[in-house]
This record gives sequence, C-alpha cells and structure tokens, in this order.
Amino acid sequence: MNSATSIVRTGVIGLGNMGMSHARQLRQGLVPRAELTAVCNTGAKPLLEFPGVAQFTASAELIRSGEIDAVVIATPHFSHVPIAIDALENGLHVLLEKPVGVHKNDCLQLIAAHHGRSGQVFAAMFNQRTDPFYQEIRRLVRGGELGEVRRVNWIITNWFRTDAYYASSPWRATWRGEGGGVLLNQCPHNLDLLQWIFGMPESLHAFCRFGRYHDIEVEDDVTAYLEFPNGASGVFITTTGEAPGTNRLEITAERGKLVYQNDQLVFTRNEVETSRYCRTASDGFGAPTTTDVVIPVAGHGSQHLGILRNFTAAILDGATLLAPAAEGIHSVELANAMLHSTLTGHTIRLPLDGDAYHRQLDQLIARSQAGKQNRPADSD
Amino acid sequence: MNSATSIVRTGVIGLGNMGMSHARQLRQGLVPRAELTAVCNTGAKPLLEFPGVAQFTASAELIRSGEIDAVVIATPHFSHVPIAIDALENGLHVLLEKPVGVHKNDCLQLIAAHHGRSGQVFAAMFNQRTDPFYQEIRRLVRGGELGEVRRVNWIITNWFRTDAYYASSPWRATWRGEGGGVLLNQCPHNLDLLQWIFGMPESLHAFCRFGRYHDIEVEDDVTAYLEFPNGASGVFITTTGEAPGTNRLEITAERGKLVYQNDQLVFTRNEVETSRYCRTASDGFGAPTTTDVVIPVAGHGSQHLGILRNFTAAILDGATLLAPAAEGIHSVELANAMLHSTLTGHTIRLPLDGDAYHRQLDQLIARSQAGKQNRPADSD
Repeated sequence: MNSATSIVRTGVIGLGNMGMSHARQLRQGLVPRAELTAVCNTGAKPLLEFPGVAQFTASAELIRSGEIDAVVIATPHFSHVPIAIDALENGLHVLLEKPVGVHKNDCLQLIAAHHGRSGQVFAAMFNQRTDPFYQEIRRLVRGGELGEVRRVNWIITNWFRTDAYYASSPWRATWRGEGGGVLLNQCPHNLDLLQWIFGMPESLHAFCRFGRYHDIEVEDDVTAYLEFPNGASGVFITTTGEAPGTNRLEITAERGKLVYQNDQLVFTRNEVETSRYCRTASDGFGAPTTTDVVIPVAGHGSQHLGILRNFTAAILDGATLLAPAAEGIHSVELANAMLHSTLTGHTIRLPLDGDAYHRQLDQLIARSQAGKQNRPADSD
Repeated sequence: MNSATSIVRTGVIGLGNMGMSHARQLRQGLVPRAELTAVCNTGAKPLLEFPGVAQFTASAELIRSGEIDAVVIATPHFSHVPIAIDALENGLHVLLEKPVGVHKNDCLQLIAAHHGRSGQVFAAMFNQRTDPFYQEIRRLVRGGELGEVRRVNWIITNWFRTDAYYASSPWRATWRGEGGGVLLNQCPHNLDLLQWIFGMPESLHAFCRFGRYHDIEVEDDVTAYLEFPNGASGVFITTTGEAPGTNRLEITAERGKLVYQNDQLVFTRNEVETSRYCRTASDGFGAPTTTDVVIPVAGHGSQHLGILRNFTAAILDGATLLAPAAEGIHSVELANAMLHSTLTGHTIRLPLDGDAYHRQLDQLIARSQAGKQNRPADSD
C-alpha cells in the first residue's frame, strides 16, 4: 500500500455482475482509504467507465503490475483458486468472491497457499455476515441464550432465477462452467451462515434434483437433512425454481424457539428448559410456559460494502476479518457433500472425503453438456 | 337401530382418554339421534359414571349383546383391527379410532372385512378433517386455485409429551404395545391430512430417531422427504420432544404460495404462473408480481363431535362420510414406510411392500423391551 497516505490500491479481477458492482463502489469512494487503481476484464472492448484506472485483460498481468496492494477476485468459480493463489504468491491482499473454490480439495490448496503469509489479508465475500439479523441469531445461539439447539429448519427458496438468467452465459449452470448449480452459485451465503451460526454438521443426506425447473444439467432444487455433533437435526431447503420464495429459519432449543421470517425475529422463550420440564412435569400433556419476545433488529446491514470496508480496515488497521477466506471451505464442503450424497444415494459423514468428491466432479465435468463450454468468462 | 325413534344405540369399547371423551359426549346428548347404551371397559372396577348403560368387560360380549347398533372403538392400537372385524361381522356400524391398524397388512384385512357390507357404515376418527383450515387448504389445492403443487413443507412439532405421559401405561411407546411412536399415536391425523389434501407420495426417505427425547424404544422424532407423482417434493417433520412446537404448512404451487401458521392462512398469489414467467421473462432476476390474500377462516370446527355426528347421520340418513375407515390405510402406510425407510436406510417407493414391513415389525416386537408388556389396556 501507499504508506504515506495509507491508501489501499485495489484491483478488481472479473467485471461481471458482482465484480462491476465492487469496482463501482470502490470508484465512488464508498470504501474509505481504498482506491480502485486497476481492473482486469477479459472482454474484448476496453471499459470507458473507469478513466485513469489501469486496465488488463489477463489476471497474471494485473497481479504483477505493481499498481495494486490488494485484489478483489470476482471471476467464474473454477478460476477463483488459481487466481487467488497467484495473487497471494505475489504478495497481495486478497478478497475472494464466493464460493472460494468449487470443491474441497481446491479449498485446501487455497488455504495452504496462505500458510506463512499472515501479513497478507485473505478474506471472502460473505456479505450476509454483515446482516444484523444473522448476527443477532448467531449471538443468541452461540451466546447460550437459547440453550442447546435441538433442531434447525431453514427454508431458503427465494433465489428464483428465470430461464433468461441461465441463458445469459454459456458457462452458467454447467458442471464444466460452474461446478454445480444453486449450491455453488446462490447458496454459498446460506451454507456459510449455517456453519457460522451452528457449526458444521457431522453428517448429512441430501436430495438434489438436477434441472428440475430449468433446462440445465446441475441442481436447481435441494432438500438436505443434517445431523450435528450434539444430536441436533436440521433441514435445509433451497431452489432457484420457486416464486414467491421463502426465507424462514426456525431454531428449536432448550430455552425456546427462535423464528426469523418476513424480516422479523421472534423468540418464544420457555420459562423452564424443555428437557427439565419433560423429566419433572407430572402432567403428560403440559408444556413449559412461554413468553414471546420480538427481537429488535432493523435493516440488512452494509453487505458487500461492509466486507470491502472490513477488508480495507484489516489491511490498514489489523481489524478482525468478518469472513476469513479459510472459513469458505465449510460452505464448499457442505455443497459438495450434498451433491455427493445425492449422487451416491448415501448419507455422508463429515469431514467429506475430498478425493472421492473430486473424482465424482471430474466425471460430471467429463460428461458435461457438449454445447456448453468452460469459458473463463468475465462475470460471476 | 331403533327404527321407531331413529336413534342409533351406540357402544364405546375402550374407556381411556379418547374413549371416555367420546362416551361422555354421547351421554351428554351432544350427538343428536345417538344414545350411549353400552360401554366396554377392561378395568377392574365398574364405572359409576354411566348409570343405566350396559357395562361389559369383553368386547366380544358387548358386540353380541344386542344392546347396540353401532360401536366406537378406542382401544390400544393392536386391538383395533380384530375388534373392528368382529363388530363388522356381527352387523354393527363401526367408528374406529386412529390409527385404523398398526401396519398395512392389518388394514388390508380390515378393508376386506367390510367388503360386501356397504349397508354398514365404517368410519375412522380423523377429527381434524372437520377443521375449516384444512378443509379450505384442501379446497384450494384440489380445486386448482393454487395451480400445480411444487413443494409441501409441514413442520408439525406441537405434539409435545412429557416423560409422565410415557410412564402412564406400560404399553405406551413400545413396539409390542403400540407398534410405533409419534407416527402411530400422535401423527396419524397429520399423515391422513397430508394424503387427504395432496394424495399419496410415490416415494419417501425418512430419518426417524428412536427415543431421542424420551426413554422409549420407538420413534419420537421424524424428518421425512417425500416425492409425489407429479414431481412435487415435500418435507414432513414431527416430534413429541419439542416445546414450544410448531404447526406450519407451506405449499408452493404454480399460482403462488399458501402458508398456514399461527392460525392464519395466507395466499401469496402470483399474477402469472411461475413456470410461464420463468420461460418468458427477459430479466434473469425478476419474479411474478404477487398479491397477499388472507383467507378468512375461523376456529377449528367440530372435531371429534363432528365425526360422531357425521357417523350417526351416515347411518340414519346416508350422509357422506367425512372419513371412511378404508382411507385410514394411507396414514398407516405412510407411517410404516417412514419407519421402514429409517430401518433399512433406503428410499421407499409406494405402495409399500406390506409383507416386508410386517416381518420387520415382528422382529421389533420380538426384541421389544422386556419390562414393557403388551396389555390390551383400556386407554388410547
């Protein structure tokens, strides 16, 4: 960085939907002490939008240009790991879009590349971690206010996408181009929040359906059953095929039930822990007395901008990262395990056998639709 | 029946929680044109509560007593089928508590026993079919107003029971005494409504947990994934271990989403069918415009009394039965299939192989807890 002014010279690689949005936020000065100094865009025509910003068409050139201290990577999934490793090995701070990799082994490589480089900030774009609702749910769960969690039920089906979306780029929704469907493209956020709030399950059994709602080869509909180390069970449901969708997270725990839906968080609190009531009540049909508490939360936080700001503050001030990239392996492992369970028909115990899944993915890629080629395109 | 006054002389077999409640409702004159004329109670001491009502200690005697035209059977599960068959073969009208049998083969016997006896009314106590909420949901689903159903998600976890409940009778929550847990005792209502509203799934995969919340050998926690013949998917979750529980049914369909929760029924209606919008929209991220409609429904209907009245009206006036006993096989088959899936680890295609499940249940009964004996007790 420019130490005289303490400005982080930031580049963006990949100017699709997300990368362009990040570049614009940087350009507009919305991230204090960060400056957009270079972009990399594989598109044929130069961008007129960012005068004075160095433009490259190959990530390797941007990374070695000397124009940047930090880079935001928002390229198609398969290039996340090689580009991030290249950037790390060239001394840059890195902020990587989700998913951090397409499969678990890829993520392990990524984590290894950061080893011994603790001076380089390495973050992931898990912008939903900035959402006060999820922050509050996490606080209630991990702070013990809910007591031991017994069940998690998340219906997160508000990722509707039309056929036009899938037709917009040939790499979309192909094994070869994206390495998966809703689990790899839309859902990494929710899978990340799931493990961020509750920790990793110890096993799962999933029912993915491939091209259920769209003419695509990857999954666009998922129902997964989870079991956690403490015995808690869970269900996770997602799809890009339903409208209107739902975002409803219900958590049942010893001290009551927490429900997040319709942008409201309600805690129905038990006066006595459920298991204690169960053991001690003389009435067979009673239940603990409850109180409803609406938890005051407003808005959805700073999202992508919040992650960009946190990334910059981590570089300049040593601020704690909201979303270290190394934690991105968990959502990838969950996505991989859900696909692996569906394709094998088995319950998958975690940690996932990364080699077994890698072999399976390679087979899917080998059989990937002929008409859809893997293009290291410029959008995410 | 007494043809002069057109009164149905009704007996009740089994005076546990439910049977006693039915007997009292009959005794109090709450069922027009039905009279409680006999009860059968295996308890040692005679009941003082029903003066003038004939009392028996064996169902076979009551059935052959000449004191009744119709009988309500509310005994423990395993005796439902033999007692109902005995009553049918002796010319009585029969109203049978749920589950109508413990396993599918049992139910087939029951249905066969009613064959050629169309003059005898044979009903099941599916009292929740009288609930205006479920009636309205069924009307919206089957009347086509929702369009084709894509997903069903039912969290029905408000069946909390304490340890005292399970300790109240030695036959409770044993394979030998009840033939199952929450699926056979509490959930037959919900499984019946599920098939009554949506029809039977064509396959299911279930994750039952045995004695998760209570010191019992049968399942007290169930998560099941369902697939229906039209491709719709579903999740059904139930337990007797959570408080506060939830009753939330979400139905996603082509014309929108119907949600029943907190005693409110809300239809979020799509202006255009989802699949049509998906195919024709030029925007990748759009979704059909919606309107929220709160469907006006109040109260939960006449419940058990409604079924008793409908049973009596079917006998005297030929009224259409709300819940023919033959339809009770479906909820039993669903419960059996969920247990069979869990115990085999396989997805079960329906119709279920009744012989295979019968063999499995026999093994469970053979290994049933020594301390718990099968007693043809008097309560349900």
